[in-house]
Amino acid sequence: VASLDSTASPDVRRQNLSLALAAALWHGPLSQASIATLTGLAPNTVSRLVTDLKARNLLTELGQEARDGVGRRGTLVGVAGQSVGGLGLEVSTDRLAVSLVDLTGGIAFERQRRVNNRSRSVSRTLDDLARLGRQALDWAEAAGMRLAGVTVAAPGLVDEPGHLVFAPNLGWADVHLVAEISERLGNDRGLSIQADNEANLAAVAEYWHGPGRDWGDYVLVSGEVGVGAGIVIDGRLFRANCGFGGEFGHLPVVPDGPPCPCGSRGCLERVSGLPAILAAAGLDADPGQRDAAIKLLTAAAGSGDAAAIAALDQAGRWLGTALSSIINLLAPQTITLGGVFGPLADWLAPAIWSEIEERAFVARFYRPQLVVSELGAVGAVRGAGWTSLRRVCEDPTLVPVDRSTGLSRASSA
Amino acid sequence: VASLDSTASPDVRRQNLSLALAAALWHGPLSQASIATLTGLAPNTVSRLVTDLKARNLLTELGQEARDGVGRRGTLVGVAGQSVGGLGLEVSTDRLAVSLVDLTGGIAFERQRRVNNRSRSVSRTLDDLARLGRQALDWAEAAGMRLAGVTVAAPGLVDEPGHLVFAPNLGWADVHLVAEISERLGNDRGLSIQADNEANLAAVAEYWHGPGRDWGDYVLVSGEVGVGAGIVIDGRLFRANCGFGGEFGHLPVVPDGPPCPCGSRGCLERVSGLPAILAAAGLDADPGQRDAAIKLLTAAAGSGDAAAIAALDQAGRWLGTALSSIINLLAPQTITLGGVFGPLADWLAPAIWSEIEERAFVARFYRPQLVVSELGAVGAVRGAGWTSLRRVCEDPTLVPVDRSTGLSRASSA
Repeated sequence: VASLDSTASPDVRRQNLSLALAAALWHGPLSQASIATLTGLAPNTVSRLVTDLKARNLLTELGQEARDGVGRRGTLVGVAGQSVGGLGLEVSTDRLAVSLVDLTGGIAFERQRRVNNRSRSVSRTLDDLARLGRQALDWAEAAGMRLAGVTVAAPGLVDEPGHLVFAPNLGWADVHLVAEISERLGNDRGLSIQADNEANLAAVAEYWHGPGRDWGDYVLVSGEVGVGAGIVIDGRLFRANCGFGGEFGHLPVVPDGPPCPCGSRGCLERVSGLPAILAAAGLDADPGQRDAAIKLLTAAAGSGDAAAIAALDQAGRWLGTALSSIINLLAPQTITLGGVFGPLADWLAPAIWSEIEERAFVARFYRPQLVVSELGAVGAVRGAGWTSLRRVCEDPTLVPVDRSTGLSRASSA
Repeated sequence: VASLDSTASPDVRRQNLSLALAAALWHGPLSQASIATLTGLAPNTVSRLVTDLKARNLLTELGQEARDGVGRRGTLVGVAGQSVGGLGLEVSTDRLAVSLVDLTGGIAFERQRRVNNRSRSVSRTLDDLARLGRQALDWAEAAGMRLAGVTVAAPGLVDEPGHLVFAPNLGWADVHLVAEISERLGNDRGLSIQADNEANLAAVAEYWHGPGRDWGDYVLVSGEVGVGAGIVIDGRLFRANCGFGGEFGHLPVVPDGPPCPCGSRGCLERVSGLPAILAAAGLDADPGQRDAAIKLLTAAAGSGDAAAIAALDQAGRWLGTALSSIINLLAPQTITLGGVFGPLADWLAPAIWSEIEERAFVARFYRPQLVVSELGAVGAVRGAGWTSLRRVCEDPTLVPVDRSTGLSRASSA
């Protein structure tokens, strides 16, 4: 709570740079006059801000405005590709992944490695993850791309300082992801490193460079061995107290159901995660071999295999029951199926809808939509990359002025 | 998104008046110097704002500062009692209630009438509710108290324009509460009227003039014939898309449980609402006669009646199961038992805890607390009254300057 009387302080300048960059990010390419209209800033302020952002290689000129009528046509500016990157790293039960992304939504470098992380030591898994991360850092250095930061995605409870408190499906507890990855990356460049839950990051990926901005409030339900959810309310990720919460997979749906590694019984993920579906379908597939297992399952269901169809229907019913709780509590406009639930959506959706129609009393009075994530399995690692870039969007001065442009500090807005 | 360059506009003046009033409301009585410190506003600006708020009878002088050391002791100012009131009206299954409250947390006028609203027409019930409201308005007029507005509490889904969409336990659907009450109050004074769900209003009551500000994020669970919840996150009521959501009573807890008037089966309120507890306890009491029923139930449980104790234990288990879903999704720091759950807390709490400890995986990594609402059954109607006053806190200029003080418009800050 502060006075509004302050004259342009460094904070105001940062905020105005952030506003102008956001206008270009969400609405660009656009003219400086359009930035002024969108932000409410004075045209000469916008002009100084755009000069500054260009000097930081965050904005670039993208041709002339196409416009009818009289008056000078403005130069269009837009977010510059590949000048600055965000690194995402992901550890999940069955793979390691890295994604180096830029502000335009582009993917500069992406790799993944299939490996069963449930049967290895934490240390070996993190060594391998850092090795993937260093490949991306080397690529960025060779390409002249500056790094805004690193974000690590993990399938468990991650607190705000980036400490992985508990990941039952990995069998990990109490792992300080930020410190461990920082040490392994040889972080002498002072990279900002953070960590978050994989479903949270998959949810923000849809907002940054997917259709998420048109979804209203939404819940992305991510299915893997475990089941998670990322909740976006008013355009912001809901991270709850300490960053906990969103543990959708541990909603109790079967009062006396099967035991869960979390310590409870009848948790949603025990009856609707990939291993439960494969077991109910009677398919001999390793859920850790995700793509192969999905292929087997969709082939069986597609060819009319009654056990596979029944298994998917039952998993959809439990998902629908748990989603009814979310709808009755939070009334999201959109439910997004991510992870393995995407390729299985044709079989899951009818059962999900049937439970929502019966149980989600609130859904009778507005129209939630059920959509399938197009990002699917890469959502979390790309969301991690874009989250790393978010700091630059909030404070563009984190990216230094490129001295070769000759812009002096004194002339910046 | 606007420029921060604007000079003091009417909006800025309103906002500064609101800041100064809020400082007095939450931290008063206090000196003008303390208001300046809390708000970051310049001392002479604060002086003008306090003069203005006193002229509107919103602030009043409350003696001299008690302070050691040198320097002049400041005059303390605080929120004025009874100069402006907020009216709350409540319709529930078994009663009608009115509460006229002031900014200090004082209750100027409060009445309730026991009546079974489930067996009467909507129109007769609203006639009676408006009659109670008019008694409060007459009281306010005689006392020289100005009215900030009216808020109606109802046990169901209320959308943001104040339309009661569905209240299964009342058997009401599609009732335009704001228009109906406005018409019945003969609202030629142009009173601002709004409506909201009873559990939402009971939750904000705890924040306004209860211990709620010290609870962090919290969920107030309100038990009556139905069960509802009000969710407060970051000091703000979470109202979800269109104002829906928070329908805790319709969380599916028993997959094939008893049918619910909402159209589903096994909803929490069907197995943990007052009628379910009374039936399981084998007590012949009318849940519509709330106080008598509670008395019978606590007497039976207190004297060791096994059926009553088992019924309360079972209700507590279902509540604990549903609360585990809330904790796994939202990780609130505090769970508050309101309505009938307050007087039953001694019997419910052990079972609630036992389920949370087993099922709420997230709760093992932070410490949620379970507290009992002290406001209890009057929470919703008082919360409605304080919600009516909230508009004045946001825009103190809604209360006109009292001409007798001689303050001219031109001299206001």
